[in-house]
Amino acid sequence: GYAKVDHHREVRQGAPEVIYGASKTKEQMEGIINSLLSHCKENILITRLSTESAAYLSERFDLFYDELSKIGIVNRTEHYSADGTIVVATGGTSDIPVAEEAALTAEVLGNHVIRLYDVGVAGLHRLLSNMELLSKANAIIAVAGMEGALASVIGGLTDCPVIGVPTSVGYGASFGGISALLSMLNSCASGVSVVNIDNGFGAGYLASMINHQ
Amino acid sequence: GYAKVDHHREVRQGAPEVIYGASKTKEQMEGIINSLLSHCKENILITRLSTESAAYLSERFDLFYDELSKIGIVNRTEHYSADGTIVVATGGTSDIPVAEEAALTAEVLGNHVIRLYDVGVAGLHRLLSNMELLSKANAIIAVAGMEGALASVIGGLTDCPVIGVPTSVGYGASFGGISALLSMLNSCASGVSVVNIDNGFGAGYLASMINHQ
Amino acid sequence: GYAKVDHHREVRQGAPEVIYGASKTKEQMEGIINSLLSHCKENILITRLSTESAAYLSERFDLFYDELSKIGIVNRTEHYSADGTIVVATGGTSDIPVAEEAALTAEVLGNHVIRLYDVGVAGLHRLLSNMELLSKANAIIAVAGMEGALASVIGGLTDCPVIGVPTSVGYGASFGGISALLSMLNSCASGVSVVNIDNGFGAGYLASMINHQ
Amino acid sequence: GYAKVDHHREVRQGAPEVIYGASKTKEQMEGIINSLLSHCKENILITRLSTESAAYLSERFDLFYDELSKIGIVNRTEHYSADGTIVVATGGTSDIPVAEEAALTAEVLGNHVIRLYDVGVAGLHRLLSNMELLSKANAIIAVAGMEGALASVIGGLTDCPVIGVPTSVGYGASFGGISALLSMLNSCASGVSVVNIDNGFGAGYLASMINHQ
Amino acid sequence: GYAKVDHHREVRQGAPEVIYGASKTKEQMEGIINSLLSHCKENILITRLSTESAAYLSERFDLFYDELSKIGIVNRTEHYSADGTIVVATGGTSDIPVAEEAALTAEVLGNHVIRLYDVGVAGLHRLLSNMELLSKANAIIAVAGMEGALASVIGGLTDCPVIGVPTSVGYGASFGGISALLSMLNSCASGVSVVNIDNGFGAGYLASMINHQ
Amino acid sequence: GYAKVDHHREVRQGAPEVIYGASKTKEQMEGIINSLLSHCKENILITRLSTESAAYLSERFDLFYDELSKIGIVNRTEHYSADGTIVVATGGTSDIPVAEEAALTAEVLGNHVIRLYDVGVAGLHRLLSNMELLSKANAIIAVAGMEGALASVIGGLTDCPVIGVPTSVGYGASFGGISALLSMLNSCASGVSVVNIDNGFGAGYLASMINHQ
Amino acid sequence: GYAKVDHHREVRQGAPEVIYGASKTKEQMEGIINSLLSHCKENILITRLSTESAAYLSERFDLFYDELSKIGIVNRTEHYSADGTIVVATGGTSDIPVAEEAALTAEVLGNHVIRLYDVGVAGLHRLLSNMELLSKANAIIAVAGMEGALASVIGGLTDCPVIGVPTSVGYGASFGGISALLSMLNSCASGVSVVNIDNGFGAGYLASMINHQ
Amino acid sequence: GYAKVDHHREVRQGAPEVIYGASKTKEQMEGIINSLLSHCKENILITRLSTESAAYLSERFDLFYDELSKIGIVNRTEHYSADGTIVVATGGTSDIPVAEEAALTAEVLGNHVIRLYDVGVAGLHRLLSNMELLSKANAIIAVAGMEGALASVIGGLTDCPVIGVPTSVGYGASFGGISALLSMLNSCASGVSVVNIDNGFGAGYLASMINHQ
Ligand SMILES: Nc1ncnc2c1ncn2[C@@H]1O[C@H](COP(=O)(O)O)[C@@H](O)[C@H]1O
Ligand SMILES: Nc1ncnc2c1ncn2[C@@H]1O[C@H](COP(=O)(O)O)[C@@H](O)[C@H]1O
Ligand SMILES: Nc1ncnc2c1ncn2[C@@H]1O[C@H](COP(=O)(O)O)[C@@H](O)[C@H]1O
Ligand SMILES: Nc1ncnc2c1ncn2[C@@H]1O[C@H](COP(=O)(O)O)[C@@H](O)[C@H]1O
Ligand SMILES: [Mg+2]
Ligand SMILES: [Mg+2]
Ligand SMILES: [Mg+2]
Ligand SMILES: [Mg+2]
Ligand SMILES: [Mg+2]
Ligand SMILES: [Mg+2]
Ligand SMILES: [Mg+2]
Ligand SMILES: [Mg+2]
Repeated sequence: GYAKVDHHREVRQGAPEVIYGASKTKEQMEGIINSLLSHCKENILITRLSTESAAYLSERFDLFYDELSKIGIVNRTEHYSADGTIVVATGGTSDIPVAEEAALTAEVLGNHVIRLYDVGVAGLHRLLSNMELLSKANAIIAVAGMEGALASVIGGLTDCPVIGVPTSVGYGASFGGISALLSMLNSCASGVSVVNIDNGFGAGYLASMINHQ
Repeated sequence: GYAKVDHHREVRQGAPEVIYGASKTKEQMEGIINSLLSHCKENILITRLSTESAAYLSERFDLFYDELSKIGIVNRTEHYSADGTIVVATGGTSDIPVAEEAALTAEVLGNHVIRLYDVGVAGLHRLLSNMELLSKANAIIAVAGMEGALASVIGGLTDCPVIGVPTSVGYGASFGGISALLSMLNSCASGVSVVNIDNGFGAGYLASMINHQ
Repeated sequence: GYAKVDHHREVRQGAPEVIYGASKTKEQMEGIINSLLSHCKENILITRLSTESAAYLSERFDLFYDELSKIGIVNRTEHYSADGTIVVATGGTSDIPVAEEAALTAEVLGNHVIRLYDVGVAGLHRLLSNMELLSKANAIIAVAGMEGALASVIGGLTDCPVIGVPTSVGYGASFGGISALLSMLNSCASGVSVVNIDNGFGAGYLASMINHQ
Repeated sequence: GYAKVDHHREVRQGAPEVIYGASKTKEQMEGIINSLLSHCKENILITRLSTESAAYLSERFDLFYDELSKIGIVNRTEHYSADGTIVVATGGTSDIPVAEEAALTAEVLGNHVIRLYDVGVAGLHRLLSNMELLSKANAIIAVAGMEGALASVIGGLTDCPVIGVPTSVGYGASFGGISALLSMLNSCASGVSVVNIDNGFGAGYLASMINHQ
Repeated sequence: GYAKVDHHREVRQGAPEVIYGASKTKEQMEGIINSLLSHCKENILITRLSTESAAYLSERFDLFYDELSKIGIVNRTEHYSADGTIVVATGGTSDIPVAEEAALTAEVLGNHVIRLYDVGVAGLHRLLSNMELLSKANAIIAVAGMEGALASVIGGLTDCPVIGVPTSVGYGASFGGISALLSMLNSCASGVSVVNIDNGFGAGYLASMINHQ
Repeated sequence: GYAKVDHHREVRQGAPEVIYGASKTKEQMEGIINSLLSHCKENILITRLSTESAAYLSERFDLFYDELSKIGIVNRTEHYSADGTIVVATGGTSDIPVAEEAALTAEVLGNHVIRLYDVGVAGLHRLLSNMELLSKANAIIAVAGMEGALASVIGGLTDCPVIGVPTSVGYGASFGGISALLSMLNSCASGVSVVNIDNGFGAGYLASMINHQ
Repeated sequence: GYAKVDHHREVRQGAPEVIYGASKTKEQMEGIINSLLSHCKENILITRLSTESAAYLSERFDLFYDELSKIGIVNRTEHYSADGTIVVATGGTSDIPVAEEAALTAEVLGNHVIRLYDVGVAGLHRLLSNMELLSKANAIIAVAGMEGALASVIGGLTDCPVIGVPTSVGYGASFGGISALLSMLNSCASGVSVVNIDNGFGAGYLASMINHQ
Repeated sequence: GYAKVDHHREVRQGAPEVIYGASKTKEQMEGIINSLLSHCKENILITRLSTESAAYLSERFDLFYDELSKIGIVNRTEHYSADGTIVVATGGTSDIPVAEEAALTAEVLGNHVIRLYDVGVAGLHRLLSNMELLSKANAIIAVAGMEGALASVIGGLTDCPVIGVPTSVGYGASFGGISALLSMLNSCASGVSVVNIDNGFGAGYLASMINHQ
């Protein structure tokens, strides 16, 4: 097959292999999973897994599948390799699919994750009433579309790394996530960095790295 | 002269003529002021007035000039034609020139104005400790560059019209105000509208309209 | 459930709760409506409500539904809490869905609304022959796509706040509403502000705020 | 010399050679003028001619120079080769330099030109009171920055070709003329076409072509 | 009905009414056609008419319909009100639908039209072998996507007005017509102006205006 | 004074106050420094400090000033509060000013910093020969303009968090840092996040946060 | 028919005719193929050929069709007219369709092609272990989406021309290939040039030209 | 010193080291030149060398300096290592500085170069009268700003690789070279590829690579 499966990555990078399912056929994924299983028995993560491909893989592997975030996990096993906590917050309910991609990624990588959804800046009391939770996190993932102010506001309220994930949620001048992306990049709060629009996986992975230090 | 001075606007629009000074020579402005003085004796507003032109006009008229906001006012007279209050808030200190353009415009149009500067969302306590002030305003002007989240946050905290003024303050991905502009246009809080980048005058004028209803 | 229903918003913001239906399942909306009904019996507004979800909700609630604007209202009741009038104008017939979102929002919030549709600037006589109507408004909502000049022209003809709503109507260099958005932001007329592309709801809400002052 | 002087263009295109002065040294222009004079004695047009280069050329040729529009004309001679009239209109006073580039170009090509400056759409009466002038034109050049609505409004009021010239006048979201450019391209009025931002020359040349048919 | 049919436009603009069919229901169009027929018996033009709506209208009116360009004409009658010729040229075969919108518009307005398709600049001999045709035109419409160089090259070869129509044909960095649009706006040849991307109608209408002078 | 100095931030965020010098007068900065010194005696960081303002402050305070990065530090004192190492790498020599902003920020916050400059991806051997250094870092800051591939390549070679800082270095299609910004946001390597263009400070601050966990 | 088939191109350009299938009907293509077969018996290349059109043409001609790259070849015949080798490399597996368009184009034009797929810069060892292959190529085609760094890295490792093909693969800030396009244009390695997003054909054609010198 | 001088590049890439002078101090460049001279005695190329730095280096080395293109060459020596010819063509005279950067680069690398300046597509006869020259080239560099059609037209006329160099020449909608860049990327002629805006060096280097095959 074409895809060069990377057996050494766990060694070099200290984390299990991840399959980016977006443009792979179900047969390609089946092949990659089989190849990976030869050296890694648990928690193989597949992102952007379509419902249809998930059905196919379910018949062949022990697959956990989350419809909302399109996350699949082969041979999912609970394990915690870090003590700290990662908080995943969203501005609205429409941001939850991306947030779940981040949360499930972080969990599969051995982290305790707390979800804090629909706490956008247009209703600050929702965020302020959770200050205690926020202040205990080792890393916070702020998932928001539209004006994307959540990352800045959380960054100002806490002193741990905040990873902003702009989402493509919204319409008109949200321009598929550009508005939120620019907001987050321009954050006036220190400690905020940004990953690609809708890249919940990247944020979960990075938060896990930070939480494992 | 080329410029068609509009003697009927005060009648039609209920407000004195305003001169946009940005691309006019000092002699052109002198001519327009003289023409306007024939029917309107006080509070002629000049925006974007350069220091050099201000010096020239000062020798010919009774000119108030604010270096920071580049606002000039011929025959400035204090007067209050509306009871309510307009709050002008900024995210940072660099937004103050634009804020002053808004505040001085609103004052010259007969409004009480309260300034609330440097209350950006990266330090929420600064805003929250001024909730009483905010809640009494008839209109609030939120002036902010960078991530421009101020308009959303204020919009969520209050129930009066909020006019967002994105500023060109910042660097990199602030793209001369585009980031703040998009943020404000995407505000999740109801009651927020937006004027052009750096358009303090437009915001002050609109706030005055609302405060006079 | 995930969505944090905000029972205090009516108190803080003086307006009934609004549900943004765009990315919610019909079951989620049913839950939110039930929760809201516990403290607010009438005029629950749902924007961006799909025809399919509207059918589902109709079987469970007394739902008014406008196919064109995708507006739903649970327990709709006529009531007028402000004396003044809001005019909603459009440039063309394709802008009417967005205009209706604005008009129905303003009505549900207790305002008298006059519709003035298809009065775009390429045929000025249509606008000029309605000058009397325009001059009596407390707030005007100008809904236009393509070159978006309607907001400027109305702004120049009247002395009340004009809220521009750019629409995504058009093709080619209209770029999904960007052309109209930029036009409106650059308006040379005073008193014009802008909301997001296609955001009829935001314009109706703001106009209501202004009309209630 | 590098520049390939095009002695045949007058024959092929029926118009005298024009020198685009923007990136040429004064010595290069001197050489080109001398070359052109060998076969064309009058009305050599130079656009974007800097004040400094104009001074240099004035000492060597009979040069008309307009400081505002940066137009230079060697051996200027009044002549009219077409009967009709071209109207050049501007939205504001800041658009006049570009308008003069158009007007002087059209005049040098043998056209009667009427200037109608500062008639922007935020004060419609200024345009409407000139309807008679507009209705007699063979071609109208609409020069405007900011929201650029002038082209559409004039296009709707008249039945001759309207050439829109967006200008880079403005600030913020005018984006150096993009806003006006998009407005004009999206004009809902028939008969409107557009040339490059600030391209007064191109508009004057095209209007002359149309007026000579 | 909502649409304000404009019975005076023919008088003011000297051309029959045109219906922009893009966002109108077939019933709306039926109503407008009936209204127009009361004062104008022939050659009612409908642009962007869907196949489905065309079928509906065909049962009620004598409708000519061109599938490719989506042009419909009610009571089509050949008539020539101008002597000159309009040439419509395209760069490739994919540009033909837009070109036909232009050509049919010009014909319905009483012009002789010559089509010159697939003569793009990557094969110059195709254009050069048609120089005689080009040189006799009163106006030339250059329809091209991708690099859009056709307008410039034709502009350089002829001395009549050239109207560039960028098309959304292409992929990748053609960005839905932006590449061709910018090329045409930057044309180094004099006499070239531009209409909106894919706006064959606008180009045909303008060419007719010029041809009727 | 206008600026609201935030005496509580050190407590809340565990880091000394930082002054963003870009748009402050030297007198404003003097005032803020004096205010800060009342509760924090050492290592007051000033970013974007102009040479001229630095000269002024040097006469009043014990100021370290780095011409290249425009970083100033009042009462600089070496101290190490974290054991790990932060690597700051650049693609070229032109990226060094931004890199020094990051490195000096990280040092003032108590971190050991290793500089690895001019190791861009067009000469991979320069990076590969430093693998040992890279593999020992707790956080890596990758500073690069132009194609910005450095962050991805380093991210693929290591298993610690990589913070990408796009720089505005370059010309043409680098578009002031947009090219590098997009590259870094699209990184295929896990663990990479991005801060604003030229935001060395933000990267240094975040790296320090991570290194102190 | 409309399309002007260009029988002289092979003579002028030394290569067989190519049909761009994207916007042609199957009947149009049939006609063009028949016309071409009259003077060129083998290896007629059709790009962007839909599966449906391929089925139609298969019944009429001896057609090779590659589903993945949408390449069709009528009367395919193996032949090698150049000695050197062209390498086609991709960053990921999703880039393979575009790479195959390039590879099959180069093969049909008489070149030896080596495929090196899924060797993106986030796993450098995959590239480095193929250095020998790379160093023997006469031209290398680097096909990559997302951050598009592959072209730069290969350009730095080799001394032959590298042709970058940005792909529209990715999501969010990859913006349909813009990110990769800008990366490649800004390459710091010498010898790199770029073709349009997803233009595998153009890259294969150019590589063949270079390999035949 | 910071810059890592790369003594092995000549070996790996078969070409002398080149110094990108844009952001280096004259002292930095002096150091790099001295380092390079230790292993390479002739033809050290410096691009983007400021007049001031050139003066400094002239006193220390045997420096050829071309004011127009800002190219410097230490120990320039004529030598020809390839038989073929490279043609460098420009659309206008303003493109010459970039063209000279390309031409001088190609010459220093051992190529015969023919210059064909000011042959833009708005006057095709200038190009057509040089067909013989064009048809003999091994590689052609097409340098053009504004509409950038030169690359396509030349690509259609010849059968050798054409390297497009968009220039930032122009105003308005040329957007600093974007218009020309997009034109060239969308070229309908086969064999055209593109380098960065104003990147004459890159084009000259690539042309030399091709000419040496
Ligand atoms: N949703 C995602 N977004 C961005 N990168 C991802 C995503 N999911 C997986 N990846 C990355 O893609 C790599 C796998 O790509 P592949 O080999 O194409 O399956 C993983 O190692 C991750 O670094
Ligand atoms: N069409 C709309 N566009 C923008 N904002 C809206 C729209 N409809 C509702 N909203 C806002 O969304 C809020 C409700 O969001 P949610 O809690 O997600 O249903 C309301 O309070 C409004 O401020
Ligand atoms: N394809 C088109 N593109 C742009 N404008 C058009 C088009 N077709 C018609 N129009 C214009 O739209 C007007 C009719 O619009 P409407 O009243 O909405 O049908 C006509 O008078 C034309 O000026
Ligand atoms: N996928 C492609 N992308 C860009 N250009 C192509 C492609 N396929 C073919 N072409 C070009 O299109 C020409 C044929 O266009 P046509 O005459 O419309 O079929 C060929 O000579 C190629 O130069
Ligand atoms: Mg913080
Ligand atoms: Mg509010
Ligand atoms: Mg008004
Ligand atoms: Mg008209
Ligand atoms: Mg011409
Ligand atoms: Mg890594
Ligand atoms: Mg190389
Ligand atoms: Mg060719």
